[in-house]
Amino acid sequence: MKILLIGGHGTIGKRVAAALAERHDLTIAGRSSGDVRVDLASVASIDAMFQQLGPIDACICTAGTGYYGDFHTMSQQHLMGGIEGKLLGQVNLVLIGKRYLTTGGSFTLTSGIAAEHPARNGACVAMLNGAINSFVLAAAQELKEDQRINVVSPGLVEDSRERYGALFPGYNLVPMGKVVNAYLLSVEGAVNGRILKVYS
Amino acid sequence: MKILLIGGHGTIGKRVAAALAERHDLTIAGRSSGDVRVDLASVASIDAMFQQLGPIDACICTAGTGYYGDFHTMSQQHLMGGIEGKLLGQVNLVLIGKRYLTTGGSFTLTSGIAAEHPARNGACVAMLNGAINSFVLAAAQELKEDQRINVVSPGLVEDSRERYGALFPGYNLVPMGKVVNAYLLSVEGAVNGRILKVYS
Ligand SMILES: NC(=O)c1ccc[n+]([C@@H]2O[C@H](COP(=O)([O-])OP(=O)(O)OC[C@H]3O[C@@H](n4cnc5c(N)ncnc54)[C@H](OP(=O)(O)O)[C@@H]3O)[C@@H](O)[C@H]2O)c1
Ligand SMILES: NC(=O)c1ccc[n+]([C@@H]2O[C@H](COP(=O)([O-])OP(=O)(O)OC[C@H]3O[C@@H](n4cnc5c(N)ncnc54)[C@H](OP(=O)(O)O)[C@@H]3O)[C@@H](O)[C@H]2O)c1
Repeated sequence: MKILLIGGHGTIGKRVAAALAERHDLTIAGRSSGDVRVDLASVASIDAMFQQLGPIDACICTAGTGYYGDFHTMSQQHLMGGIEGKLLGQVNLVLIGKRYLTTGGSFTLTSGIAAEHPARNGACVAMLNGAINSFVLAAAQELKEDQRINVVSPGLVEDSRERYGALFPGYNLVPMGKVVNAYLLSVEGAVNGRILKVYS
Repeated sequence: MKILLIGGHGTIGKRVAAALAERHDLTIAGRSSGDVRVDLASVASIDAMFQQLGPIDACICTAGTGYYGDFHTMSQQHLMGGIEGKLLGQVNLVLIGKRYLTTGGSFTLTSGIAAEHPARNGACVAMLNGAINSFVLAAAQELKEDQRINVVSPGLVEDSRERYGALFPGYNLVPMGKVVNAYLLSVEGAVNGRILKVYS
């Protein structure tokens, strides 16, 4: 398969990339790294990426971030980066990318455990993740030509222990192999319209 | 209680208003109707509304809409109205309004069944509803001074049968009394951080 992986040099993305590269034609896209540069927050940039690449069999997104911070000083401006990047960026990957996805191709987006189990300071990320999950349920009903879509919702992943562990007391660390498997299930399996929760 | 109800002249809002007006001091706000005018899509307008009203014991929102339409012609611009109004509008009601809410006061937002069971053409609304539900789970953990927050997630309500029925084949019509009860449970009960699903 010809696979596009946006965010393939990130913590989760590089593990997914390693698993896919063995047996697929993999293109990595990122904002400041990768074979192709894209800014998820820009419709024009997403458009240009797909035009450059031509038809693909799978589009995976492990890119995007959202604001973490004190709820009582948070305002709309803190929310907009995540809405434009992680949320609308992934939505636009689907709305634009479906024209470039082959028959039977798949989208795999990324949300996160905060949709159901938000941590302190995580209201923005919770909101983004909940939005992505529900969007995927709807999009799965709308895609044509046997195209599929799923979303992987990871818990705190093992490789992020140092970077994020202190923000998530009491959250189980998820083994990277389990997270990678969820992406493989979506890309190489037959599942559709699923929120693939990998919480422990 | 002194209660602010945004959207109190809408289909659901007017039923909630009727139930609350008997025993509470109720102020209705709306974009083009009500005792107070507010545009949820404007932070400045929300700010001005709360400043005008002063301390309140409960803030309920039954206002807001999102795009319904063909998935294959939908683009980011179709999504923005709902993101700015129904989603960020309700989030801003909480972020700003918590400073005006009394100790023990409550917020009650509105999402909808599309978060879990989207109808055809409803990907935008699904996304908005999923976002609101998850935001409420997080916000409930953050609010201080015994403030509470819940979200009512209605199915297709009885009073919307004529307006929306044809868009939702196979959805049960929800009796208005059950929908109103969910708002009463949130405002007058003790529940917190709940997604109050009223699907049938
Ligand atoms: N790590 C966890 O434990 C965890 C748990 C639950 C959910 N998640 C979610 O999983 C996803 C990946 O997390 P991660 O920890 O692997 O993130 P990460 O290490 O920060 O990597 C994110 C990647 O996304 C790219 N990116 C960020 N913003 C972008 C934009 N606007 N346009 C294009 N690329 C952009 C970055 O590329 P550049 O560096 O080149 O900008 C980077 O390669 C995120 O959505 C995160 O919220 C992570
Ligand atoms: N009806 C259903 O079956 C159903 C099912 C599930 C979920 N819901 C949700 O429940 C909520 C209420 O639905 P409804 O059917 O009662 O809606 P509705 O009859 O259209 O009433 C919506 C109310 O919101 C106000 N409003 C809209 N945009 C606003 C803005 N930007 N600022 C301030 N006020 C605004 C309107 O006031 P003006 O007319 O003055 O602008 C109107 O009073 C919506 O969020 C809807 O998505 C409804």
